[in-house]
Amino acid sequence: MACRIGVVATGSRGDPTVAADVQALAERLFPGRAPEILFHPNSALVSGHFAGDDAARAQAFLDVANDPGFDALWVARGGYGACRLIEKVLPELKPAAREKAYLGYSDAGSLLGALYGQGFEHLAHGPMVQDIRRKGGEAAVARALSWLVDRSPEALEPSLAEDARPAVAFNLTILAHLVGTPWLPDLDGHVLMVEEVSEYMYRIDRDLFQVTSSPALRRIAGLRLGRCSDIVPNDPDFGLDEVEVARSWCSRAGIAYLGRADVGHDIDNKVVPFGPRG
Amino acid sequence: MACRIGVVATGSRGDPTVAADVQALAERLFPGRAPEILFHPNSALVSGHFAGDDAARAQAFLDVANDPGFDALWVARGGYGACRLIEKVLPELKPAAREKAYLGYSDAGSLLGALYGQGFEHLAHGPMVQDIRRKGGEAAVARALSWLVDRSPEALEPSLAEDARPAVAFNLTILAHLVGTPWLPDLDGHVLMVEEVSEYMYRIDRDLFQVTSSPALRRIAGLRLGRCSDIVPNDPDFGLDEVEVARSWCSRAGIAYLGRADVGHDIDNKVVPFGPRG
Repeated sequence: MACRIGVVATGSRGDPTVAADVQALAERLFPGRAPEILFHPNSALVSGHFAGDDAARAQAFLDVANDPGFDALWVARGGYGACRLIEKVLPELKPAAREKAYLGYSDAGSLLGALYGQGFEHLAHGPMVQDIRRKGGEAAVARALSWLVDRSPEALEPSLAEDARPAVAFNLTILAHLVGTPWLPDLDGHVLMVEEVSEYMYRIDRDLFQVTSSPALRRIAGLRLGRCSDIVPNDPDFGLDEVEVARSWCSRAGIAYLGRADVGHDIDNKVVPFGPRG
Repeated sequence: MACRIGVVATGSRGDPTVAADVQALAERLFPGRAPEILFHPNSALVSGHFAGDDAARAQAFLDVANDPGFDALWVARGGYGACRLIEKVLPELKPAAREKAYLGYSDAGSLLGALYGQGFEHLAHGPMVQDIRRKGGEAAVARALSWLVDRSPEALEPSLAEDARPAVAFNLTILAHLVGTPWLPDLDGHVLMVEEVSEYMYRIDRDLFQVTSSPALRRIAGLRLGRCSDIVPNDPDFGLDEVEVARSWCSRAGIAYLGRADVGHDIDNKVVPFGPRG
C-alpha cells in the first residue's frame, strides 16, 4: 500500500501551488509506488501572517496526526507560528499520533521538540514541502521523501553513521525559545545540532548564551554546529564567526564541541531523526 | 559629600564624547552639589562589537561595583554583551557591591536581572548615559540623575505610585533570554513591565510565548506592556498589534494584563526600581 503523507502548515502561510509540483516529483521518484501526498485544506487558509488562525492550524495538525490512515505528517513550511499550537495540540493527541512520522525544521521545531518531550519516537528535522521552491530544491524534497517513504540511510546527516548517541537538530532561535518552558524535551546525553539563518551574529551569540547556560541543556553529549547562513552584517563587525562563538560558549559551559553538522536552511539540509537509532 | 557615580559599558562600544556632556548637564542640574560622574577607562576600549573584551568589561563592572567610594553604577549604553559577563562578575562581587545603586535598561537587563536574583536591593531599569544622544535626550538623562542623586519620585514609572506590589522592568528579548538560565530572578508576585524596540511583531509574539509559558514566570502578579517602538514591518502584516499579542498570551497563561507601562527605548523612559518599595 502506498505511503500516505499528510501536509500541514503550522506557521506562516505558504504557496498552494507547491502541492502539484511535490506530487509530480514523488511520481517521478517512486514509479509505481509513489506516496500519496495530501495537503490538509486548512493549510491553504490565510490569517494575517499565518496559514489560518491558531485553531485552524491546530485542527489541521490533529486531523493528520490522529488519523491512522496517514503514515507521516510533513510540515509544509516554516516562518513563524508552530509554538502557538503547542498547548492546543498536545492534550488532543490520540495513540495513532505516536505511530506516524513527523518531518520539518525551522519554526516547526517548536512542535517537534514538544512532541519529543511527550515521548514521540518518529520525529525528524529535515526538508519541508516549501523547499521545492529553493533553487535546486527538488534535491531537498527528494531527500525528505526518501526518508518518509523508505527511511533511506542516504538521507541522514552523515555524522549519525559514526556516532551512535541519540541526536536532535533544531533551529537555534527556536530551541532557545523552548528553554525554560515545559516543552523543552529532555536532551541529556544527546548530540544537539543547531543551525541558523538570517540573524545577526550577536543574536546567534545570545541564543547560545541561553542554550548553553540552561542547566537542562548542560547535560547534552555535545553540540554540532549546522550552517549559519545569510548572517546579517553587524556594524561594527562582531569580531567572531559562528564557529568561534559556538566553541566559546561550549567551552564556558563544559559542553563538548563536536564540529559541524550537515543541516541548514538550504537544499543540502540532511535528515536528523530525533533520539536513539537502530 | 557629592554623589559619586561610576559609568561602565557592559555591552556595545559607545561614544566617549558623552562623558563631558553628561557631566556638564549634571553641573547645571545640581548647582553646588553636582554628582561626580566617572567613566571607567575600560569603557573607552573597543573589541569588535564590544566596549572591550569580556574580561575588560567585567573588570570595569567589578572595579565600580566593589568600590565603596561609588554610590552608583550607571550603565553607559546597551547594544549587546552584558549576558557574557554574568558568570565572570557574580562570583567576584564583594559586600560593597550590594550597597550601591545600579541603573540601566535594554541589554543591561541581563546583569540587572542576575543581580536581582542574588538579592541586590538597589537596582533600577531606566535611562543610560548614551540616551543623551537621543533628540531631547537630556530629559532622559536628567531623570536618571534625579533618581541616582535624590531618588526623586518624579523619575518613577507612574503606575508605581498606585500599585504597592514589587515591580521589575525588562527589555522583552533580554528577559526571554534569561528564561531557563540560573540567572532568571524569582519574580513571583511582581508586576512585570516589558518593552521592546526594533523587532518584528512575530518576534515579540514569540518572546511572549516563552515568557508567559515559563512556569517560573506564570506566578507574576501581572504584566504591563511598555512601548514597542520601531517595529519592523512584517510582510504580510502580522494581523495583531503589541497590545493584542500581550493580552492574548496573558489570557492563555492566566496572567493578569495590567495595561501599559511608561517605559521604552526613548526619552520618556521612566525609572522602575526593582522589587518592593517604601
